Amino acid sequence: MKIKLMDRVLEANEAWAEENRKLLASSRTRMFNVIGSPGAGKTALLEKTIALLAGRPTVGVIEGDVATTLDAERIAKTGARVVQINTGDGCHLGAYAVHAALDEICARRAPGLIFVENVGNLICPAEFDLGEDGKIALLSVAEGDDKVEKYPLLFSIARALVITKLSLLPHTNFRIEAAERAFRRLNADAPVFPLDSLTGEGFDPWMGFIGRAAGGGARPGPVGGGTA
Amino acid sequence: MKIKLMDRVLEANEAWAEENRKLLASSRTRMFNVIGSPGAGKTALLEKTIALLAGRPTVGVIEGDVATTLDAERIAKTGARVVQINTGDGCHLGAYAVHAALDEICARRAPGLIFVENVGNLICPAEFDLGEDGKIALLSVAEGDDKVEKYPLLFSIARALVITKLSLLPHTNFRIEAAERAFRRLNADAPVFPLDSLTGEGFDPWMGFIGRAAGGGARPGPVGGGTA
Repeated sequence: MKIKLMDRVLEANEAWAEENRKLLASSRTRMFNVIGSPGAGKTALLEKTIALLAGRPTVGVIEGDVATTLDAERIAKTGARVVQINTGDGCHLGAYAVHAALDEICARRAPGLIFVENVGNLICPAEFDLGEDGKIALLSVAEGDDKVEKYPLLFSIARALVITKLSLLPHTNFRIEAAERAFRRLNADAPVFPLDSLTGEGFDPWMGFIGRAAGGGARPGPVGGGTA
Repeated sequence: MKIKLMDRVLEANEAWAEENRKLLASSRTRMFNVIGSPGAGKTALLEKTIALLAGRPTVGVIEGDVATTLDAERIAKTGARVVQINTGDGCHLGAYAVHAALDEICARRAPGLIFVENVGNLICPAEFDLGEDGKIALLSVAEGDDKVEKYPLLFSIARALVITKLSLLPHTNFRIEAAERAFRRLNADAPVFPLDSLTGEGFDPWMGFIGRAAGGGARPGPVGGGTA
């Protein structure tokens, strides 16, 4: 009974994820779903990434939070278009809410690249397809290198792993190599980017990845019709 | 429809939480439900706390994790009785699973004090009553002082707030006072314990709190019948 209901939730979500994929394809826009624990550094990663992109391509951000508009306010300062979704007690974003936000972000002219910052949570957001081009998993060195093994679903399906807060590394017992080995056991080929969003350390490979990933859809175009 | 189903889940959970309360009362055992993000330092806090208690009272630990027995293995080394619950894809512990673990931990002679280490997650575990004497909220200084506002439910109902990883403070922009002010807006009287589980800094007030809280139920006694 419980399983059946979950199936129906996931089925409805999948239908809206498919709508999102159509909208993104017709808008020639790539979308990445950024997932990590509370305080893993998702907003800081986006702030730095948007600053370094310097408008090429134009960036939109969909901010998912249980409460407050704190993260959307931070992102708005970068100049990116941002839509905040407050989930109330919801522990993840769903494709339907993201569809409404996409409609708003793409209303006049679609950006070339959209980041979804999901609710801070390593578990539930991994289970929901938003129609994105890939999930980006974040893990802060302050969280410990055992977290890959302990929360395997996200890391097994991630398109990339970003290890954040590298400047804290000397003050923790986090071992980059141990985290990478654990990640590789779950995920055959997604790249790993250790970096620090405050100092900018390690950003070159990450920006290269984003540039290549956004490549196919980075040229802004008009929003295609018939997908809403 | 969705709301009705959630009501039924919470109702069933509440019935098992009530069974847990009866079992704990008849065993003269106190139980605390430790909740925080992945990597907030829940296991480290328990390791240090159990070491400092030095067997008075006897401690049992119920470990909740999506996957692995890593935390239970760490806790077992302290000499505490430990039962691991793996939730698979479940984002929190429920009162039913905890009841089975309680039965196991209390089987011969009940410990005076039980810690439940919930699944690493600031959202879902806050919604589920396990029959505990109180929820202990953890927040690591590496997570940022905005997290109290951003995840309000847990902090509003917590019986205590433990701010962890204090030795990382000089390397972060976390402001203890800002976190305490945000916490006080949500929670009128729960105490706040900034500490570091590796160095032991700040443990005296926390151990005093645990000692007083465990006071009423700290004398181990036989398990009462008729509650399973």
